[in-house]
Amino acid sequence: MNVYGKHYRTIWVKEDDPQVVQIIEQRLLPHKFVIEDLTTVDDVARAIKEMHVRGAGLIGATAGYGMYIAALHAPRDSAAAFMAALVAAGEKLKATRPTAVNLEWAVERQLEAVKAAGDDLEEKIETAFKTAQTIADEDAEFCRRIGEHGQAIIQEISQRKQGDTVNILTHCNAGWLAFVDYGTATAPIYAAFNEGIKVHVWVDETRPQNQGARLTAWELNQHGVPHTVIADNVGGHLMQHGLVDMVITGTDRTLYTGDVANKIGTYMVAVLAHRHNIPFYVAAPLSTVDLNCPTGDDIPIEERGREEVTHVKGQQLAPEGVGITNYGFDVTPNELVTAIITEKGGARAPYVYSLKAQFDQ
Amino acid sequence: MNVYGKHYRTIWVKEDDPQVVQIIEQRLLPHKFVIEDLTTVDDVARAIKEMHVRGAGLIGATAGYGMYIAALHAPRDSAAAFMAALVAAGEKLKATRPTAVNLEWAVERQLEAVKAAGDDLEEKIETAFKTAQTIADEDAEFCRRIGEHGQAIIQEISQRKQGDTVNILTHCNAGWLAFVDYGTATAPIYAAFNEGIKVHVWVDETRPQNQGARLTAWELNQHGVPHTVIADNVGGHLMQHGLVDMVITGTDRTLYTGDVANKIGTYMVAVLAHRHNIPFYVAAPLSTVDLNCPTGDDIPIEERGREEVTHVKGQQLAPEGVGITNYGFDVTPNELVTAIITEKGGARAPYVYSLKAQFDQ
Repeated sequence: MNVYGKHYRTIWVKEDDPQVVQIIEQRLLPHKFVIEDLTTVDDVARAIKEMHVRGAGLIGATAGYGMYIAALHAPRDSAAAFMAALVAAGEKLKATRPTAVNLEWAVERQLEAVKAAGDDLEEKIETAFKTAQTIADEDAEFCRRIGEHGQAIIQEISQRKQGDTVNILTHCNAGWLAFVDYGTATAPIYAAFNEGIKVHVWVDETRPQNQGARLTAWELNQHGVPHTVIADNVGGHLMQHGLVDMVITGTDRTLYTGDVANKIGTYMVAVLAHRHNIPFYVAAPLSTVDLNCPTGDDIPIEERGREEVTHVKGQQLAPEGVGITNYGFDVTPNELVTAIITEKGGARAPYVYSLKAQFDQ
Repeated sequence: MNVYGKHYRTIWVKEDDPQVVQIIEQRLLPHKFVIEDLTTVDDVARAIKEMHVRGAGLIGATAGYGMYIAALHAPRDSAAAFMAALVAAGEKLKATRPTAVNLEWAVERQLEAVKAAGDDLEEKIETAFKTAQTIADEDAEFCRRIGEHGQAIIQEISQRKQGDTVNILTHCNAGWLAFVDYGTATAPIYAAFNEGIKVHVWVDETRPQNQGARLTAWELNQHGVPHTVIADNVGGHLMQHGLVDMVITGTDRTLYTGDVANKIGTYMVAVLAHRHNIPFYVAAPLSTVDLNCPTGDDIPIEERGREEVTHVKGQQLAPEGVGITNYGFDVTPNELVTAIITEKGGARAPYVYSLKAQFDQ
């Protein structure tokens, strides 16, 4: 997407030196836009672990490029020594964020591809490079398709409003910064905006980590999409006054029943949207669908550290030693979800049939 | 209420020097507990305007003591000159926070009382002193009664739970710091706690001003009431998991229909409580009831500055120049309010009858 008018992905190979992988150092956003070079496996592991990059899709893509960097520097004495170095690099990368599904998946995909390539080590390196590019391209392509499918929904609302601005509320950051390009929840918005449909985005700041205020607002601004940041408390008031036409969020884990685990607070937005008959959409690559988890109650909810709530950028807000509970996610039940938009189109209830059908396509 | 084990109100006359009025400098909470002396009308005006004191009840009480200080220092040449100085002081005080209803009410009450007192100036000063004390005493007494009436509700839930902890969620600060003593939403909690009923309070941090994290948590901690601070996004998840037994909030303006204007985000909490069949109570002195405003749509909603959202304690969160919308309040419609607890007891729907009846008592 656009940064200062130029097109960027969140990760790429350096134009004049293909042995260097480059990323956006996201911890410095929105205040500074800094590009970081990754040249060793340690660089890549640190970038994932310390969250220079974050978001399901981007973590997977970064691991893919990490395996390519591992291949570049692996010993060339024998194919066995070469592969052993790759396996070790994969273990190091997988240990950085142990719960990230895409990370493990990308490492395994690289190992299989490189193993299957011919015995010539140059060919193996070339395969690792191509696989890394394919992982990134697929991520971008799936998000682009989600954008295409979701754009149709925005267009329909725009037509019903006779071309008046479509007001879209989003929670957290499911933008291109969390993927390779386009994002998931933001992809339909970018697509609609690019088609000249008038849109405006209400950006929940998304306490306690403020990904909305920090990242989503920055993204939308770079692309020129009109938007307004609000405290998470404001959405209900806006809906009461007819100022929200649709809600769209991402998802961290989607059940085949259509229950959706996403950033804490998503459930509250969904309940408010339901009360006001405002459609609530979830943008979800099929890779987020968990076919093995039977109900929302079975999703483990991560509890995070107290400092996220007591402090903001080192400034203490709450009294010393106060009790804090900090759940990272909540589960929105399927009855509140109007449709789930995947790379294969919009799935509607009952999701046990519609999501399953998309897998079988 | 308790501060470091000692009983305090939010405003009082200094023990060994009745010409000095003392307050808690609330801007320094929760990090520092500082008592400030007020000895001139200018001191009092500054304390209200710059929010050393805040909250409906406390603003009124401070204005009452401000008029007493004005009487102490008014010229004694003639009754006319004396009264003229009081009128001027009243104008100065009323100008500090022009929308605060209690402020104007307290000034007018003082002027009438002092005018009606005998011609002797010492008697007028004594009357101003007594009236200031009465305004403060009444505020404390009304809150105490709200506590008594609300305690019965908590007790009922406690009995239904066979003595298990009653989990109460509150939003913003309608605590004793906003009044002279006890508070409104907190009064039933303190009363129940003092009776030995097991309670635990979920404290919404209440963005963007964080009155929950800063003030409510500090108050509850001082009184020893178990509590946990949460981001405003967490309440829905807690309700989904049976961790909230009741909600209680204050109100800035209550319509005779039972619609309630309170801190932004209250409406979202009320909608979630309704979905989960959790009772939603509003603690409201009858002085907050506006008999002239026909519907919630007629309540003007204050829009506040952008810095409250973009910055926390001087630290910038959102991108430079980003669009911000910052509504201070929202309106919760009467159908979501289980009961309104006033100093005269609990009023239930239809409020047009029950609130009216309390006024006529």
